[in-house]
This record gives sequence, structure tokens and C-alpha cells, in this order.
Amino acid sequence: MKLSILGCYSATPRALTNPTAQVLEIKGHVFLIDCGEGTQVQLRKQQIKFARIKHVFISHLHGDHFFGLPGLISTFMLLGREAELHIYGPKGIKKAVTTMLKVGNAWTNFPLIFHELTAKESEIIFEDEKISVKTIPLIHRIYTNGFLFSEKEGERKLNIGAAEDYGIDVSYYRNIKQGKDVMNEEGKLIANHLLTFDPPAPKSYAFCSDTAFNQEIIPIIKNAGVLYHESTFTKAHEHLTKPTGHSTAAEAATIAREANVGMLILGHYSTRYKSLEVFKNEAKSIFKNVHLAEDGKVFEL
Amino acid sequence: MKLSILGCYSATPRALTNPTAQVLEIKGHVFLIDCGEGTQVQLRKQQIKFARIKHVFISHLHGDHFFGLPGLISTFMLLGREAELHIYGPKGIKKAVTTMLKVGNAWTNFPLIFHELTAKESEIIFEDEKISVKTIPLIHRIYTNGFLFSEKEGERKLNIGAAEDYGIDVSYYRNIKQGKDVMNEEGKLIANHLLTFDPPAPKSYAFCSDTAFNQEIIPIIKNAGVLYHESTFTKAHEHLTKPTGHSTAAEAATIAREANVGMLILGHYSTRYKSLEVFKNEAKSIFKNVHLAEDGKVFEL
Repeated sequence: MKLSILGCYSATPRALTNPTAQVLEIKGHVFLIDCGEGTQVQLRKQQIKFARIKHVFISHLHGDHFFGLPGLISTFMLLGREAELHIYGPKGIKKAVTTMLKVGNAWTNFPLIFHELTAKESEIIFEDEKISVKTIPLIHRIYTNGFLFSEKEGERKLNIGAAEDYGIDVSYYRNIKQGKDVMNEEGKLIANHLLTFDPPAPKSYAFCSDTAFNQEIIPIIKNAGVLYHESTFTKAHEHLTKPTGHSTAAEAATIAREANVGMLILGHYSTRYKSLEVFKNEAKSIFKNVHLAEDGKVFEL
Repeated sequence: MKLSILGCYSATPRALTNPTAQVLEIKGHVFLIDCGEGTQVQLRKQQIKFARIKHVFISHLHGDHFFGLPGLISTFMLLGREAELHIYGPKGIKKAVTTMLKVGNAWTNFPLIFHELTAKESEIIFEDEKISVKTIPLIHRIYTNGFLFSEKEGERKLNIGAAEDYGIDVSYYRNIKQGKDVMNEEGKLIANHLLTFDPPAPKSYAFCSDTAFNQEIIPIIKNAGVLYHESTFTKAHEHLTKPTGHSTAAEAATIAREANVGMLILGHYSTRYKSLEVFKNEAKSIFKNVHLAEDGKVFEL
């Protein structure tokens, strides 16, 4: 699992800071999460192949999270894309994005499929045999979802030495990997745990931005491997969290601790702060494994 | 008159090349012409004060000429703008831009005034006592206008020495500047040309992008001081001009020569070319005073 931060600052794009966008590579998928203005340039800078993106997840319809989408789709058109593009985001996203394209008489030559979200409860919005993506309802000024990307439990790992010792025929190996007990050549049932190792623990990534402090997400993201939680402010500006629907670094860390996640990544910083260390220090006093998102940073998870 | 090139490349924004946007400063106005994705970042890089922009002119509704507009307007909102913002562009621009804002429940706290254009003939779309702005109908794949920004003839310049020699009372100076003949103290009528110098010649700037070769614009831009004319291609790719509705550098230069403009600026280059010199050389063989637009370049005109 690999997370590339394309942009992790709040509000407007600036010369050196980009609005929210990130790419999660998981089990062969390349997922784009949010798409602020300039995302396509950030994709180029980080040399992420446009064609590999087939799914885009948009948390909410504030400009700093989706104004890069019409341009990205236009570029896909210019590049001659033919593969489907799936866009998951709040109701209204289809009308806004397609209106921008239609006034220019631009039509995609590839299937552009919108999945508009309206549910207030967490729901699975994408699933295949290896992973699932589920929404995390957030509290913000407008309808907003985070996303939980979870690997499914993989096949058990065959202990070939043990299988040979127990005299198991090769034709049973597939069943063994699927967790079944199997007969050996003498007709004796061999328990699966004697023939296999545990598979690698499934990984998961929870993206939570933008949101006010919201303990209701804790059961949804419980034990997630990695949590990206917005920290627009530090405690010094805690009074701004309520009117804006944002969190402090301390609040992000509190969520991380209570949800027992493996690692916390902070982001969506207000540009009023000269250094990001203050976010990290504030969070570390509550939760130990804190990392700072930075534009261009890649996390190998 | 000062022209700042924010972006001058065709198609998609890239790490080092920006789509069309430029700022024309003329007689106290700061006009933004076209607004591709990333324009607000380019404005910051060139330290142009956002608040001074009160008029935006959009040539056409292809993404590389207006996808930066929703983000720019959002930033004006965050900056607490109160002054009117006037946007001139093809019919449809209002719906596209406001839909992008409305889905995010974003409403401007300043008057956002759209002037939607539909005329097929050149028309004056802005005028005050010092300048006028008139459309230049272009030929492209969709409805497109260039813009001609023209200073009006200024007041005549008073020759104070002559006025004193002729014994003209100071109270007549205002009339003299306005071109009137006046009586001197002896009651003799003194011709205006004996009391004044010619004012500086009015300046003008014609922006023509995107367009196929179109000689019908020549009477509109005749004798313009400066012409910015797109040159997406060179002769090597002349076969692409018809299907795309673009021009070669040679065609841009032909327009410049036939319109007898003072200076030609080339731009809207296809990114297929490794060097811009080929555009300049091609144009120079037809018209002498050729300059290349480059992102970040400023022309003091």
C-alpha cells in the first residue's frame, strides 16, 4: 500500500502549497482521493500514470477538494482515454462537472460514471475480491464523507514442507490456501492450521477530511492501519473549529488514540502556520505514531 | 500599458507550462484575460494584487481558458472581497461557474456580474472615459471572441511657454487642453495648435486566441499597437490547423502584417515543440517585430 500526497493544505492553492489530493495504491488499484485545483500538475510532478486512475473519490464539494476534476477529465480526453472512469462523490457532483464540460462542447470518449452519494450512514461504495471502500460520514459545513479503504483477508499461505510431510497431494493445495482441512494419501483429515501460515494482516487506510471532531467515526475506523485526519488548526485556534467544521491536531490525535489506529497522518493545514512541527508536537502528546503529510511526500505503508 | 503573461501554452497544464491567462494593466484598470486552471497561483507568483482585478474577459469555454475561474472566485470570497467582479464571456459561462460554486453551498459576498456574449459581429462590451474594450469574433471550434483594448485619445498637452507668450489667462488652460481655440488678453483668438502639443498616441492591445487564420479580423485590429495572436503550430503541422481551429506562426504573422500592427506577440504553443525559436523564426520571415510570450514574462508596452 502506497500513499502519495499531492496536496495537503486547506483553502486556496498557492505557489508552494496545494489543496487536497492524494493517490492511494492498493492491491493493483490507483485511487485518487479528492482533486483540488492543480491536481493534474501534481500527478505529473510525481510521475503517476494518469491512465492507471480508474476511480476518484471526492469527500465533499468545496472547491479545494474538487475544482481540479473538470481539468483532469479534459486531460484524460486529450490523452485519448478509453477506459471507464468512476467518480464517487456527493450528489451534485455530476451536474457541476458535466456542465463545465458541456459549455465547451466537450464530451468524453470514455465512459464517465458518477456514483452520487447521499447516505448519512456508512456504506460500502466499492468492492472487489481484494478490497472494499466504505464511506465515513463526517461533520462539516456541507455533506462530507471520509473513505475507509480495506484489504480483505488474503488466502492462507501454504507451508509446502508440512504439506509434503503429511503426504498431501498437490491437487489439494488450492483448497488448503482457502482454509480447508484436507485428506492425506492415507485418508486421514489434516487440520488446515497444520498446513498453512497466517496470511499478511490486511491493511487499511482511513481518509477523514474535512471534519469537525466527531467520535462517531471511531467504530467505523477502529483498528485501521493508517488514519489520515485533518488538522486545520492547532489548539491556539480551537475557537475556529466550530464555525468552520474543522479539527485541531489534538482532536485528530484523540480520534487516532480512541480508534486504536496504527499510525496517524496529519494534513489539511491552515496556511496561517509558518511551521508544521507545531501540529506534530501537539498530536504527539496524545498519540505516539504521528506523521506529517507534505505535498510530494510518499508513504510506503 | 503592461502585459503580464501568466500562461501561454495550449491544452493541459503541466509542471512548467500553464494554460492561457494574462493580465493587462491599462489606464488604471487591471484586466484578467482568460483564466486556465492554476491562474490564481500564477497571479500570486507574479505578485499581482487580486483585489485590483475587477474585470475578467474569457475568450471561449474550452477548459484551458476558463477552468481556473471557479477557484479564483472562491479565493476572492475567502479574501473577503466586497467589490464587484465583472465577467465577460460566452453564453453558458454563468451557469457553469455558478453551478460549481452552488454545489458547495458557496455564495459570493460581493456582486458577481456576468456579461454573457452571443453577438457574431464585433461589439463594444466595456467603455469608460479613458478606454474601450471591443470583441474580435474569431473562428474556432466553439463560439470564441478575441478582445481589443483601446485607449481613447487623451487631452492635448499644454505648451505653457507658448500660452504665456501669447498672454493667455490661466483660467483658459482647461479649455486649451480640451482642444479649443481661446482669446488672449488682447482679445485675439489664438489657434489651439499654437498652444499645445499632440497627446501621446493612444495605445491598443488586441488579444486573439484561439483562432484559425481569419482575415476578417484585420479591419477590427487595423493599426493596433500590439497584437497577441495564437500560434499553436508551425508550418510543419499546418494540416492540423483546420480540424483544430488553430493557426501557425506564419499565419499569425500574416495577420500582423496585413493589419499593420506595431508588434506581434506569439503564444498558445502546442507542447509538442521543444523550443519556441521555431515559432519566432517562422513569423519573422513575414513580419519583423515578433516577440514570444512566455509564462511569467512581462511586456512594458
